[in-house]
Amino acid sequence: MLEHGGNLHDAIRRYQRAREDWLDLSTGINPQAYPIPVIASDAWHRLPEPSAGLLNTAQTYYGAPQLLPVAGTQAAIQGLPRLREKSKVVVAAPSYAEHAFQWKQAGHAVTEVPYAQLESAVADCDVMVVCNPNNPTGEIVAAEVLLRWSKQLAAKGGWLIVDEAFGDVTPQTSVASHTAQAGLIVLRSVGKFFGLAGLRLGFVAAHPELLMKLADLLGPWTVSGPAQQIGSAALSDRAWQLAMRQQLTDQGQRLHHLLATHGIASTGCALYQYWPHARPAEFAEQMAAHGIWIRHFKHGVRLGLPPNEAGWQRLQQALAASIAA
Amino acid sequence: MLEHGGNLHDAIRRYQRAREDWLDLSTGINPQAYPIPVIASDAWHRLPEPSAGLLNTAQTYYGAPQLLPVAGTQAAIQGLPRLREKSKVVVAAPSYAEHAFQWKQAGHAVTEVPYAQLESAVADCDVMVVCNPNNPTGEIVAAEVLLRWSKQLAAKGGWLIVDEAFGDVTPQTSVASHTAQAGLIVLRSVGKFFGLAGLRLGFVAAHPELLMKLADLLGPWTVSGPAQQIGSAALSDRAWQLAMRQQLTDQGQRLHHLLATHGIASTGCALYQYWPHARPAEFAEQMAAHGIWIRHFKHGVRLGLPPNEAGWQRLQQALAASIAA
Repeated sequence: MLEHGGNLHDAIRRYQRAREDWLDLSTGINPQAYPIPVIASDAWHRLPEPSAGLLNTAQTYYGAPQLLPVAGTQAAIQGLPRLREKSKVVVAAPSYAEHAFQWKQAGHAVTEVPYAQLESAVADCDVMVVCNPNNPTGEIVAAEVLLRWSKQLAAKGGWLIVDEAFGDVTPQTSVASHTAQAGLIVLRSVGKFFGLAGLRLGFVAAHPELLMKLADLLGPWTVSGPAQQIGSAALSDRAWQLAMRQQLTDQGQRLHHLLATHGIASTGCALYQYWPHARPAEFAEQMAAHGIWIRHFKHGVRLGLPPNEAGWQRLQQALAASIAA
Repeated sequence: MLEHGGNLHDAIRRYQRAREDWLDLSTGINPQAYPIPVIASDAWHRLPEPSAGLLNTAQTYYGAPQLLPVAGTQAAIQGLPRLREKSKVVVAAPSYAEHAFQWKQAGHAVTEVPYAQLESAVADCDVMVVCNPNNPTGEIVAAEVLLRWSKQLAAKGGWLIVDEAFGDVTPQTSVASHTAQAGLIVLRSVGKFFGLAGLRLGFVAAHPELLMKLADLLGPWTVSGPAQQIGSAALSDRAWQLAMRQQLTDQGQRLHHLLATHGIASTGCALYQYWPHARPAEFAEQMAAHGIWIRHFKHGVRLGLPPNEAGWQRLQQALAASIAA
């Protein structure tokens, strides 16, 4: 299995620092989670039948004509490579590592291509995977460009997979509303924007025929009863969503500016900031010495949002004492 | 996808009877569910890292040397067929239909064999799947027989998969404690005995090497945060478990006797009773007319436990007015 952020167990063990003493900035999960409603006892008790209410709510929220709820985007990332004959797959890079990993695991020929070169790669592949906005760099491909690529790929029976896991703050970038056209597949996550990663809920927007195949592959009862109920509440709470979009936009800018004052030119989105770093592991060590758990890659480091003012102060002090790049 | 019990949506739509007017006996899920504790907000919020506490508790409860938590037994039933080259698979029949279905889906050569003939089938297959106790017939294969079969299969690189989803009331039948030996795989479900089917939690007990492969296949974060927390509480609550074992044993006998007074010779286990029926769909129709949703197969019908005294009375009246066999 690949390494991921959010692995506080590792931090606790490696540095012998108690859980409550860590400031966990290693994910892009919103630290201001959607408030959990009272759960109906039947949601825990009964086998979770598909919920028409959840589907309708999600269709409205995502503007998608047809959706399949899944137990987190990860389930779809693992399932989709199994629904195609061995193909030539281009995955935008650097990006969320599970995409390339799962396509390779399923036996496809995978090439990782920088965002700037995707345009020229469309002609020579069957499947393209783009995170939009990208995790961790925040790069965005315009919707009209994605739709053009999607048509090029669909014309030869190909797929464009757009992972919009971090798209909730910028809904104008989404192509979910166009997924009635064959070959365009959009992945959405409830975990990040709503701060509910423990729930295991995500959605796939795509052509009904493909969704049916994916549903068959994933099997029955994948989404828990409570996830259905809480998901319905969160996706229909327009007031919370609007306020949170503003709040996260502000906090993302605050993080960007804080990094800038320490000489760091970061990119990213509202939920995280990223910058290339020559010695990312060393920087992560420096942060860990301050009790701050971050995500480092081979090519750079990523920081999520502190959950409160004390967290912001602690981050500022740690940055002041560290080598930024 | 296969049809299953617990599909009240279908009942509501087909008979235009409101949800609250149905007595749902279509599953073998304990109607007296384990009481849900207060959920830590982090369980909803954070990515669910593997929980050592849950694992330890489950190892003690199941008496198993090594376990993998899964999002319901279904995840393992779907995953295991993908971890073998195409094999000759014998599935005990009649039984829980997902086993044969998933092995066939994965391209294996599947033969369904009655329980009485399993002994003679061991020599001629690579994989055998046995539900113990069986769903829906309640048939039980003695632990020492299973262990003998398992050794025969393991000697040729084969597997014995024992689905103990309904084994909690009769722990003496379990072979989970023997799963350190290669080739013996035991599936356990938290949904049935603890009445928490909406939670999506189950366990696979098997050789560490196989569990590692299965974990890789299923990917990260499959079990939700709340499922981990509630599962830990339920599996460690020895007093509740002991009382519930007795209670369910009594209720299973009550159901058996009630059916007997209507001329029905049923078999099963504490959580359901089954009997062969010449016209199972017709019997199900008669029950549905009384607002009772049952599970019917091609070969017979299955009834779960009523949740309260009113339910018992309603079942008794419906049985008195129906053609039992």
